[in-house]
Amino acid sequence: MVFECPLPIQDHDTITLGHGGGGKLSQKLVEQLFVPALANEYLEELHDGAIFPSDGGQMAMSTDSFVVRPRFFPGGDIGSLAVHGTVNDLAMCGARPRHLSLALILEEGLLLTELRDIIDSIRQACDESEITVITGDTKVVERGSGDGIYINTTGVGALMPEVQLSPRRVRPGDKVIVSGSIGRHGMAIMSVREGLEFESTITSDSAALWPLVEGVLSVSQRRMHVMRDATRGGVASAINEIAQAAKVGVDLHEPAIPVDAPVRAACEILGLDPLYVANEGRFVAFVSPELADEVVDLMRAHPLGQDAAVIGKVVEEHPGVVRMRSGFGGSRVVDMISGEQLPRIC
Amino acid sequence: MVFECPLPIQDHDTITLGHGGGGKLSQKLVEQLFVPALANEYLEELHDGAIFPSDGGQMAMSTDSFVVRPRFFPGGDIGSLAVHGTVNDLAMCGARPRHLSLALILEEGLLLTELRDIIDSIRQACDESEITVITGDTKVVERGSGDGIYINTTGVGALMPEVQLSPRRVRPGDKVIVSGSIGRHGMAIMSVREGLEFESTITSDSAALWPLVEGVLSVSQRRMHVMRDATRGGVASAINEIAQAAKVGVDLHEPAIPVDAPVRAACEILGLDPLYVANEGRFVAFVSPELADEVVDLMRAHPLGQDAAVIGKVVEEHPGVVRMRSGFGGSRVVDMISGEQLPRIC
Repeated sequence: MVFECPLPIQDHDTITLGHGGGGKLSQKLVEQLFVPALANEYLEELHDGAIFPSDGGQMAMSTDSFVVRPRFFPGGDIGSLAVHGTVNDLAMCGARPRHLSLALILEEGLLLTELRDIIDSIRQACDESEITVITGDTKVVERGSGDGIYINTTGVGALMPEVQLSPRRVRPGDKVIVSGSIGRHGMAIMSVREGLEFESTITSDSAALWPLVEGVLSVSQRRMHVMRDATRGGVASAINEIAQAAKVGVDLHEPAIPVDAPVRAACEILGLDPLYVANEGRFVAFVSPELADEVVDLMRAHPLGQDAAVIGKVVEEHPGVVRMRSGFGGSRVVDMISGEQLPRIC
Repeated sequence: MVFECPLPIQDHDTITLGHGGGGKLSQKLVEQLFVPALANEYLEELHDGAIFPSDGGQMAMSTDSFVVRPRFFPGGDIGSLAVHGTVNDLAMCGARPRHLSLALILEEGLLLTELRDIIDSIRQACDESEITVITGDTKVVERGSGDGIYINTTGVGALMPEVQLSPRRVRPGDKVIVSGSIGRHGMAIMSVREGLEFESTITSDSAALWPLVEGVLSVSQRRMHVMRDATRGGVASAINEIAQAAKVGVDLHEPAIPVDAPVRAACEILGLDPLYVANEGRFVAFVSPELADEVVDLMRAHPLGQDAAVIGKVVEEHPGVVRMRSGFGGSRVVDMISGEQLPRIC
């Protein structure tokens, strides 16, 4: 028996914040409890969205709840985040987002003006993504049983027929691309929460990725093997998940990873590794090597992908393990985070 | 300006429990805030589910969050309720439930054994409804920021092509049918919450209605005009919503409304009107008059519809108003409830 810290799930155990962190504990909860209990072919894909056949093609469905604290932060709020998060999960399936459901859990005492601002922000984010909220639900809980507002959005979208995205399609030699500079969302939240002031305000990267993804997929088609947005657990967790599912190794090149100077500085002050910090408008893409430069150029031509870069490659060695090679020739394992680095980041 | 108690939504106001009660305050929140802000043709239908075109037919989508307290009650728990609630909303659209998303907001400290029991209950309810959970999400909030577990389920289903359900199709003369005895879910919850003991335990009516609905729709087809499940706000609110949307009057016949003796007794003790008490396995149906008896017989032959009855009819008089005629010839208006009769009932 291997001991871990925090301790793994056991029958007499309770839920910890780490179970919601997008790292190993989250993974265990899903793999040991949810998937066996609810077993079906869709869930076993362990993706953020599910693809199901529809009469005239394939559709994708994805759900996410948002509990971010504070509710308003530089570059966004819980409303825009709730739209972006689900739209992006659909985009990562290769699906054009179409319809959204919106379910609110409100705490007694929430200001109606604040609710109005959040709904306005949802509308604006929907307009930008050309998606509509077609159905909704509101529940209210007593003061002290919630935290202002929790939002669930669930989206459905139509799969682009010419793409097929799955970790199973990843091959040694594939290039790993990140769509922009990392860690901005997490550090924007932390700056507000901790009252940190830097020379320039760090704004969240929260954005709807579909317009960027659509352009990339139109060009790459089946040579794009898999994509994943780097939310909770950051780029490190997204790449680890794919390496494990694809049973391949990944070598990352540290100097190639784009991190803005203010984010790097804030991470150093707080002792955080930007690789594990949440993003809400960044994704990693595993693509056939011959296409990598073209995809990066395409991304850089888009406002959401200006800092896109090839940051590593898929290797046959060390399957399931992600290694980081530093600028000085050293190498270390980039493990999946165990618990929770930044609670309630989304 | 008309004053109401509780006060209506104003800019300087805050969210109250009544905004989640399924009555007038909920309706105002939706009509004054959500619909204008998120305006689109789907939301304006003001139904619990939305219908959207898909490549080979029409699909329905519905979302619901569940915050019921206590989490386990006679006849069900928050897990089975979360499946039934969404499956029933799809059924009310005339859609065969197909896929479900499951999003959990867990409070730090929730027992994993309890979570396991709830997931098992979800699985069982899914099996009974022949629906699968195809995607999910888990968030964890700090102790004191939640209440054990909140569940969101969102479902998609395929519309039965031969039906067309809308308040717009309701006509004077239509019969109003209720599918079974009312008020059991609400009173089961209240009995546990208030520690009341009756001669027999009141069990919730929580159930997946699709098998019953499918049978009824196969026979009635286009002569079924609209259906609505009588959840928050009870049968009174469901019928009021339809009367308002259809701009027709409804006359109900009090002695015809099926209420089990223990529910009636509990309601009397607590000073509640069973017409406003929540159900989770009952619906009202507005059907062409010549078909009413056949539909009632069909319902009664099903375990979920044993006490089905015609309880009223649609009239040209008093459009938008529901009137109740007692056994003694008297008559009163059955208004929509204003705020919240039983908070956190689902």
